Amino acid sequence: MRTPVGIIGFRGYSGAELVALLDRHPHAEPVLLEHRESEDKPRPLGHPGPRRVAFSPDAVRAEGFAVVFLATPADVSMELTPALLATGAKVIDLSGAFRLGTVENYQRWYKEAHTQPELLAEAVYGLPEFFRSRVPGARLISNPGCYPTAANLAIKPLIDAGVVVREAGIVCDAKSGVSGAGRKPSLKTSFCEVTENFSAYSVLDHRHVPEVLRTSGIEDGEFSFTAQLIPIDRGILETIYFRTRNIGSVEDLLGIYRKAYAAEPFVRLYAPQQAPDLKAVARTNFCDLGVHYDPQSSRAVIVSAIDNLVKGAAGQAIQNMNLALGYAETAGLL
Amino acid sequence: MRTPVGIIGFRGYSGAELVALLDRHPHAEPVLLEHRESEDKPRPLGHPGPRRVAFSPDAVRAEGFAVVFLATPADVSMELTPALLATGAKVIDLSGAFRLGTVENYQRWYKEAHTQPELLAEAVYGLPEFFRSRVPGARLISNPGCYPTAANLAIKPLIDAGVVVREAGIVCDAKSGVSGAGRKPSLKTSFCEVTENFSAYSVLDHRHVPEVLRTSGIEDGEFSFTAQLIPIDRGILETIYFRTRNIGSVEDLLGIYRKAYAAEPFVRLYAPQQAPDLKAVARTNFCDLGVHYDPQSSRAVIVSAIDNLVKGAAGQAIQNMNLALGYAETAGLL
Amino acid sequence: MRTPVGIIGFRGYSGAELVALLDRHPHAEPVLLEHRESEDKPRPLGHPGPRRVAFSPDAVRAEGFAVVFLATPADVSMELTPALLATGAKVIDLSGAFRLGTVENYQRWYKEAHTQPELLAEAVYGLPEFFRSRVPGARLISNPGCYPTAANLAIKPLIDAGVVVREAGIVCDAKSGVSGAGRKPSLKTSFCEVTENFSAYSVLDHRHVPEVLRTSGIEDGEFSFTAQLIPIDRGILETIYFRTRNIGSVEDLLGIYRKAYAAEPFVRLYAPQQAPDLKAVARTNFCDLGVHYDPQSSRAVIVSAIDNLVKGAAGQAIQNMNLALGYAETAGLL
Amino acid sequence: MRTPVGIIGFRGYSGAELVALLDRHPHAEPVLLEHRESEDKPRPLGHPGPRRVAFSPDAVRAEGFAVVFLATPADVSMELTPALLATGAKVIDLSGAFRLGTVENYQRWYKEAHTQPELLAEAVYGLPEFFRSRVPGARLISNPGCYPTAANLAIKPLIDAGVVVREAGIVCDAKSGVSGAGRKPSLKTSFCEVTENFSAYSVLDHRHVPEVLRTSGIEDGEFSFTAQLIPIDRGILETIYFRTRNIGSVEDLLGIYRKAYAAEPFVRLYAPQQAPDLKAVARTNFCDLGVHYDPQSSRAVIVSAIDNLVKGAAGQAIQNMNLALGYAETAGLL
Repeated sequence: MRTPVGIIGFRGYSGAELVALLDRHPHAEPVLLEHRESEDKPRPLGHPGPRRVAFSPDAVRAEGFAVVFLATPADVSMELTPALLATGAKVIDLSGAFRLGTVENYQRWYKEAHTQPELLAEAVYGLPEFFRSRVPGARLISNPGCYPTAANLAIKPLIDAGVVVREAGIVCDAKSGVSGAGRKPSLKTSFCEVTENFSAYSVLDHRHVPEVLRTSGIEDGEFSFTAQLIPIDRGILETIYFRTRNIGSVEDLLGIYRKAYAAEPFVRLYAPQQAPDLKAVARTNFCDLGVHYDPQSSRAVIVSAIDNLVKGAAGQAIQNMNLALGYAETAGLL
Repeated sequence: MRTPVGIIGFRGYSGAELVALLDRHPHAEPVLLEHRESEDKPRPLGHPGPRRVAFSPDAVRAEGFAVVFLATPADVSMELTPALLATGAKVIDLSGAFRLGTVENYQRWYKEAHTQPELLAEAVYGLPEFFRSRVPGARLISNPGCYPTAANLAIKPLIDAGVVVREAGIVCDAKSGVSGAGRKPSLKTSFCEVTENFSAYSVLDHRHVPEVLRTSGIEDGEFSFTAQLIPIDRGILETIYFRTRNIGSVEDLLGIYRKAYAAEPFVRLYAPQQAPDLKAVARTNFCDLGVHYDPQSSRAVIVSAIDNLVKGAAGQAIQNMNLALGYAETAGLL
Repeated sequence: MRTPVGIIGFRGYSGAELVALLDRHPHAEPVLLEHRESEDKPRPLGHPGPRRVAFSPDAVRAEGFAVVFLATPADVSMELTPALLATGAKVIDLSGAFRLGTVENYQRWYKEAHTQPELLAEAVYGLPEFFRSRVPGARLISNPGCYPTAANLAIKPLIDAGVVVREAGIVCDAKSGVSGAGRKPSLKTSFCEVTENFSAYSVLDHRHVPEVLRTSGIEDGEFSFTAQLIPIDRGILETIYFRTRNIGSVEDLLGIYRKAYAAEPFVRLYAPQQAPDLKAVARTNFCDLGVHYDPQSSRAVIVSAIDNLVKGAAGQAIQNMNLALGYAETAGLL
Repeated sequence: MRTPVGIIGFRGYSGAELVALLDRHPHAEPVLLEHRESEDKPRPLGHPGPRRVAFSPDAVRAEGFAVVFLATPADVSMELTPALLATGAKVIDLSGAFRLGTVENYQRWYKEAHTQPELLAEAVYGLPEFFRSRVPGARLISNPGCYPTAANLAIKPLIDAGVVVREAGIVCDAKSGVSGAGRKPSLKTSFCEVTENFSAYSVLDHRHVPEVLRTSGIEDGEFSFTAQLIPIDRGILETIYFRTRNIGSVEDLLGIYRKAYAAEPFVRLYAPQQAPDLKAVARTNFCDLGVHYDPQSSRAVIVSAIDNLVKGAAGQAIQNMNLALGYAETAGLL
């Protein structure tokens, strides 16, 4: 028998992906928690999908969920988390509510006051490749943002190894499929505005930047980030430029990754000067890294690719659930 | 009566765009020069399209073309140009055959010997915004590459003004629609490989790089360029990152462009921190520039957008024809 | 000097196309009438676009517009038309408000009462290929729907010629790009819902059906129509199936079209068994028709293609304006 | 331990889908049989994918494959099948080589002589919903075409029930994603030709028609079929029109399907007047059916949707393998 886990926000793109992935999970079974009314898509007769329950703290307590996922906007996550934790469930939050460490940071980037400063301080940032050991003991796991996941997996091992000339600047040119903007209809994500188009937004001013700085340990002003919209459903590709020190060849760079990720099931490396594309990671929990290097000028270019709905959201959330509940970390994800 | 001009390579995407634009030109009329057999798409009955002539130097001489456009591969352009010039026609070549200045450069980037070194030395690089005065007297005009057009229009005025910290590096993260790869079928440009995908290619190693170095006057090793494929038909967007000196505000940067392009009909600027998207330039000869700046860290991000088939190929070729034949520079292009 | 004409609803896709087409018109000049506030897309500095005027009947009168276009929802068109006509302007309405002939029909298909029954009776249905002579004298021109334009141009000549076995049924399987659904954001036209998808809607129950019945003179029950959404921006392709009588060969069928459209500038025919695709008509005012026939079983298949924003909306509206104001019918449209 | 099964033609789209699906199969394990040299896409280091073996009859015999899949062109399938059968393996052929029953039919539609008339006579047509009992005993299973699968699942139960007025004609307007055309590069499937386009092909003349006639038991001349290309990767949607007899309501029609498919795991029905879209079936082995009916005129419209690479090719092939080897029919497919 599979353990029931609750999902609030199951109609959004991350939430729906979570339901689809959990449907195939060997140990956990998704239960949909109806929180706000909204119309469903027609379903085939006789195929109702996962069980549904009207959300209330009492209902959560009655179901005895070990984990509840929040695939909700940040303000809703802040509002619901205390009552959920009070039921004894662990909370895995996919919003930005608990990612930025300090109320000042949250206020600056999310333009509203943080209402749960103690939970903000308590939350564990669930990027398992770097903070795996903290996850099992956490009550509240903050699932990383999509852009920062792709960026930190590419950058942090090199920063830690001391081979990046940080003062020359790190450029992260990021591109995302449209599902990253969520399911709520808006002109910016309307088909006719996006198809046959490509656009930049939040240039030098994106709320995902502080997640990269905080995790990889680099300073504001050293990191230039542009987010851009690709006319596709899903996928993030980041092209990352910097200069190196103490690196003689592309193999040296690759070697740092090999060492850092030797035991990681969800990070894959490519042969030198080969880059992953988005088809390589679509519908997977992998982060694929390609390394390019020019030894004459010490310039490096890393291409980092993930599926924003999987390793960038729902897949990583399940990876965190697996760690939190003591399942194999890859359960339901390979 | 409109002046007939010849087009060789009219079935490729740049060639077909050239025919479509010339069809609406007030002074010139396209004549299709059949050079190699290939099947045409079905056409409506009674709408045969422009006149066609089997190509031969004699036919070109008999038609008395003032201009012949070559929308052919570089090796075909090298082969045909001497005979075309001998007919008295001016040649506007859309290939890379005559862009790189030296036979060494050509050999390095196009992996073959240049067979017309004297013509290579004679050719005028037809980027009117910078080399307008050289075009009218030229016999052979080398139409710039698509990526370099978007890059040089963004970079050169700032380099000339001395405000770019070149030694810190300039990053040009470039994205192109698929028509930039030409019409010849290949797996890389097959629909199923490209749709819902995004991929990088020629990272730190693209043959368009030397065109940027040569025109903007920067050194190899200072300029990091990645080309990437967007799943759209047409359009190039380049996101360009660098650090500045002697710049106090975004208005200072914008002011350099305002001065450089005050009289330019085909370069448009946006308000500070606003970026053009590809829909803004689709099917136009405009290059649109958006300027972003962080005064604290002196980091600038320029977004440069063109239609690769128009300002990046056929439109710029017509702009050069207009200059070469003494028409208004904007004739047929607004 | 060009004659100013007013446009209400210039931000919608049909309205924006109208502005773009009128911008290149030799005799008319678009003036944007601000009716309801809404944000504009950023524009390049120094390129403000057409002149704008706050809408009011007095403003329309003061401008002395000969024509005002309504690219508004049907209820707004019903509301504004009387006041516009009172200024002396002719009105060309792109909505469904005045297409269906009777208040009963309108009520049934648009689910609301018609508030202007006299204007409904007076309106001329502006499908020039069939009703050209009525347009110049009309005060109120009802611009046809997109699906009915493609359907009627394919069907009516054959019905008139008596070669369709109507009692066996006519099937019109229609597919449209997403711009046909308008610019207002909705989940159904969100990028992630549409890309890599294809869906049918309003099966056997579309409000465009009565326009086909009324114009082509066929009965309800004889005409099966399904609308479907293609993941593209623009274009309508209809595949039309029926059985024939008194037809011996595909050339006989083609001959009926040849005769009906001999003098028509905007209808194009293809060779037997050849079908147009949507690229053939994109951004043009053409309706392209391809004829397929199986003489053994007397089955015919017609493929009819238009650009829904041009021949299906803005282009046809300009065609009507040209007729109404005595310009060449093709002015600004070739 | 999983049973190894061989795949020839694993680089094509159907073959690659087969490999991906078998990778997750509980009982079978894919082994790639290299038949013709061709370049692979780069793969991540340390993730080589399934085992590969150079193809030869001896190698197949040595491996002891119980089943070999042929995802090859029809002529290659005809050539390889005898030798494969001689090894004792069962063959599941995804090409059209063994679908049409008679050499005359094959010759007419595939424009070449059939070289294996005895195997053609022996082959079992593997559409399990109708011919399930014949599959386990077959040596050679001919996997149905993609269009015919969607068509026959929609049509055959109604024909069998006698409720279709066949003499009035059945229209099947079919639309397919581009992967249906295979992986071999061609202009027709190049990205720039397909994006923002929609086109009909093989109107009234498609080689999949005889598969529908043969399976559903209808006559040529009664069935009008048009194939059309949707600018998406995968999915087939067919809109099917006919008149009924002895049907009073949409529930009567639906009831026929309910009865026919009561025990079928891979056919799903929708509520009356509701149609599936392609997202509903993408990456699944389902065929989804939506029923529309107008009782006044006895007209019915059925919408049938499948994923052309799954239920239309690789998924159905695995369904046949499951039957052939005695596994649960749904193994690896839900």
